[in-house]
Amino acid sequence: MVAPMNFNEEYTRRIDYIEKILRRYLPAQEGYQKVIMEAMEYSLMAGGKRIRPMLMLETYRLFGGEPGMIAPFMAAIEMIHTYSLVHDDLPAMDNDEYRRGRKTTHIIYGEDMGILAGDALLNYAFETACRSFDLDGEYAVRAGKAMKILAGKAGIYGMIGGQVVDVKESGHEVSGDVLDFIYRLKTSALIEASMMIGAVMAGAEDEDIRTVEQIARKIGLAFQIQDDILDVTSTTEVLGKPVHSDEKNKKTTYVTLKGIEESKKDVERMTAEAIRELNRYPAQDEFLEQLLKSLVYREK
Amino acid sequence: MVAPMNFNEEYTRRIDYIEKILRRYLPAQEGYQKVIMEAMEYSLMAGGKRIRPMLMLETYRLFGGEPGMIAPFMAAIEMIHTYSLVHDDLPAMDNDEYRRGRKTTHIIYGEDMGILAGDALLNYAFETACRSFDLDGEYAVRAGKAMKILAGKAGIYGMIGGQVVDVKESGHEVSGDVLDFIYRLKTSALIEASMMIGAVMAGAEDEDIRTVEQIARKIGLAFQIQDDILDVTSTTEVLGKPVHSDEKNKKTTYVTLKGIEESKKDVERMTAEAIRELNRYPAQDEFLEQLLKSLVYREK
Repeated sequence: MVAPMNFNEEYTRRIDYIEKILRRYLPAQEGYQKVIMEAMEYSLMAGGKRIRPMLMLETYRLFGGEPGMIAPFMAAIEMIHTYSLVHDDLPAMDNDEYRRGRKTTHIIYGEDMGILAGDALLNYAFETACRSFDLDGEYAVRAGKAMKILAGKAGIYGMIGGQVVDVKESGHEVSGDVLDFIYRLKTSALIEASMMIGAVMAGAEDEDIRTVEQIARKIGLAFQIQDDILDVTSTTEVLGKPVHSDEKNKKTTYVTLKGIEESKKDVERMTAEAIRELNRYPAQDEFLEQLLKSLVYREK
Repeated sequence: MVAPMNFNEEYTRRIDYIEKILRRYLPAQEGYQKVIMEAMEYSLMAGGKRIRPMLMLETYRLFGGEPGMIAPFMAAIEMIHTYSLVHDDLPAMDNDEYRRGRKTTHIIYGEDMGILAGDALLNYAFETACRSFDLDGEYAVRAGKAMKILAGKAGIYGMIGGQVVDVKESGHEVSGDVLDFIYRLKTSALIEASMMIGAVMAGAEDEDIRTVEQIARKIGLAFQIQDDILDVTSTTEVLGKPVHSDEKNKKTTYVTLKGIEESKKDVERMTAEAIRELNRYPAQDEFLEQLLKSLVYREK
């Protein structure tokens, strides 16, 4: 898909804005423990689509959020996503030496510092989110609500829970139910948190927050299925990581369960549903629609 | 030291109370990800002195806190302490197979689940602490303040920071400055958090919270130095873990820097100072004083 010119410009502008925020909240590299700050920056500033903070910001705008108040949570969600990658890459987990063409954190800093850098990023995510308690009255109350969502969706009933089942079932064939569970927790949960926190901090009603959760679940699922499709249809050069890894690891994926055509249809259907539901909100704009399309029609 | 009979009774009663709270906040063992709940319980319910939640509760009482409101933070601080032990024991860190006479978490559940169980406990600590946002008005505001302290003292400027320097300097001789830094961050920081959060949740004034932080720093330091002393003077049978491990690992400790007699004097002095400062508070009672004495005169 060729996106309209202004989308790519807008997208780049937002990536820049998000990376400026990430840098702002990264700790200064000083003190006897400086190496851990370096490892945090190394992993956090390694590029990536930044879709979680981007979706958070867009949802925040959708519900009329005032500029500035969402920044600590945008940084926090990306720190949580990053810590999960750092720990995933460890020798006892996926044992990956490269990510996005760069050496992984534990390869550069050692396995012990890899573990500690992940711990540090997870903890610092909450530390960063806590800055929102300094905001004025109503925002501090919203921050408490947002913090609950962040912790819940990142934990054993969210991302970590999905990761646990993924690790446990690795090398086994799994049922559609278990696969749904893994995708919903491992991938959708943080997308749900992103969009829900955007809505909460903007002061959205509880009903809208629940709607946003459902929309985000579809987006996360479509995103993950597209990952499965690309593992089959893409090339290592385009993807920047080895393809056919699922087949090699005998991994059950949406594609192995449903076939490639059905998977593509489901991705399109779920994305269209998400866009339709978002379009019910008057403030919904072109960018978010284009963003969702770009995520599911992406080639890497 | 033989403590008065009622101290031991009171101590046991409080341990029981704390363990009841920990069980109450532990997640139910259900779902596809059940194994992680099992690993969390295995590590959290492995015994231990529970000094962090106990000091939190005592400080909360010292400042007139009403029953019940402090429980989520008591559970949270013990979860954070426990996750740090689970990750410390990993093969890439201290590579310990036993702790308190039981196999370590990664030995029972595998190294991948050991990493994830630590992550899960850290994340769940914040999830548990977030329950305090459900409390009424004033308590929810205090909870935001307490959450900031929890995240700050557990992170790179607190416990993790100390752990990083400890790992980095392992096998090297370190200066007194660096050793102070490690002890203050690795051990004192969570003790500081415990007592500060107790004070915050009870509604203490900012000045008192700063005083409590200084008292807790001394208690943490005395506790850590006593650990160093026991490593030299105790036996494996009494201590429940190998003695002379510092010497074997060529580790700089307070004892190697200052000698055993000086170290003992410092422990007594710091403890006496902490008790004297606590005694300025009218609600200060016999139990807390006895507890602090028992911690520094302990034999294991």
